Amino acid sequence: MSDNLNPEVEPYRHPNYPIHNLLLNRWSPRIMSGEEMSEDEFLPLFEAARWAPSSYNAQPWRFLYAKKSSPHWKTFFDLLVPANQEWAEKAALLVVLTSKTHFERNGKPSITHSFDAGAAWMSLALEGAHRDYVIHAMEGFDYDKSKKDLNIPSEMHVEAMLAIGKKPKNRSDVAHEEHPNSRRPINEILIEGPYTS
Amino acid sequence: MSDNLNPEVEPYRHPNYPIHNLLLNRWSPRIMSGEEMSEDEFLPLFEAARWAPSSYNAQPWRFLYAKKSSPHWKTFFDLLVPANQEWAEKAALLVVLTSKTHFERNGKPSITHSFDAGAAWMSLALEGAHRDYVIHAMEGFDYDKSKKDLNIPSEMHVEAMLAIGKKPKNRSDVAHEEHPNSRRPINEILIEGPYTS
Repeated sequence: MSDNLNPEVEPYRHPNYPIHNLLLNRWSPRIMSGEEMSEDEFLPLFEAARWAPSSYNAQPWRFLYAKKSSPHWKTFFDLLVPANQEWAEKAALLVVLTSKTHFERNGKPSITHSFDAGAAWMSLALEGAHRDYVIHAMEGFDYDKSKKDLNIPSEMHVEAMLAIGKKPKNRSDVAHEEHPNSRRPINEILIEGPYTS
Repeated sequence: MSDNLNPEVEPYRHPNYPIHNLLLNRWSPRIMSGEEMSEDEFLPLFEAARWAPSSYNAQPWRFLYAKKSSPHWKTFFDLLVPANQEWAEKAALLVVLTSKTHFERNGKPSITHSFDAGAAWMSLALEGAHRDYVIHAMEGFDYDKSKKDLNIPSEMHVEAMLAIGKKPKNRSDVAHEEHPNSRRPINEILIEGPYTS
């Protein structure tokens, strides 16, 4: 996919300052085709995550995944709340993103493991958008059950689940069902100097 | 800047799967020119952050910044540990990234505010790399002091500080002093199915 602004995004996203189209083209559709994805198709997404920045380059992110065809699929799928199961059943891959709460090099607690995992997620999401896949993060799942059912070690924090899949062949047929969202104005997220009380 | 692979990055970054060069070109240099940056130069970075994904599109990230020429600069600069002050004094902008720990719409605690803030940071960092700026995140500062000195409300979590500035005119003259780092192999961050105990 090119880095031109996606026509589907254009009506909904008007930046106040010019930014790379890759950042505007990424959004979080839910409608997928139900097709499987090959390793050649999905491994580049984790490769992208790999190159994210992290404190002391500790790379605390660990991704667990299940392909739809795998015996693990049901274990992952059953973690989701019903509202997410409804659409995520058409995903090719479900992912549980975890992060290491302590540095391996000295055992000290990490302040930024979730923040760093978020950077890795963004990198994955952007590579996915570039490839025109659906990449959707979810907090709508049972965090406690995920720790138990996926043997997640106590030193790992569960961050989010991801649904990854292919868009329907004719995306334009379903465009009326969902579209990219907008954002707060920049003055709500940016303050010069300290907070004013 | 184009999206070709940066020659300075190329010797250090060999992805196993092809990914967008924007993701490989981003790294975290420390050496800056000391030049100021105009609003036209730095506002696009926060614009990029604005379009990051977040749970329920809550956009929990809030950026506080100080320009070098501003009376706030010293307040921000004094938060840094000496090892970071040494190089960050040449930044044009210092930023404290905070995130809202509760949803505004219903007051419920957010599970993903740090994770979401990490996505916004990554978006900012990528836009900065694309513009050939230095964008460097730090956890080496006094978190408690930042809350006090910047009047950070109790419902906000302090995530990280960022140093933002321009590269020296002749980056090649200083290339021997710092270079992009590498990453763990993908099999250390990616697991099919549950953790094996």
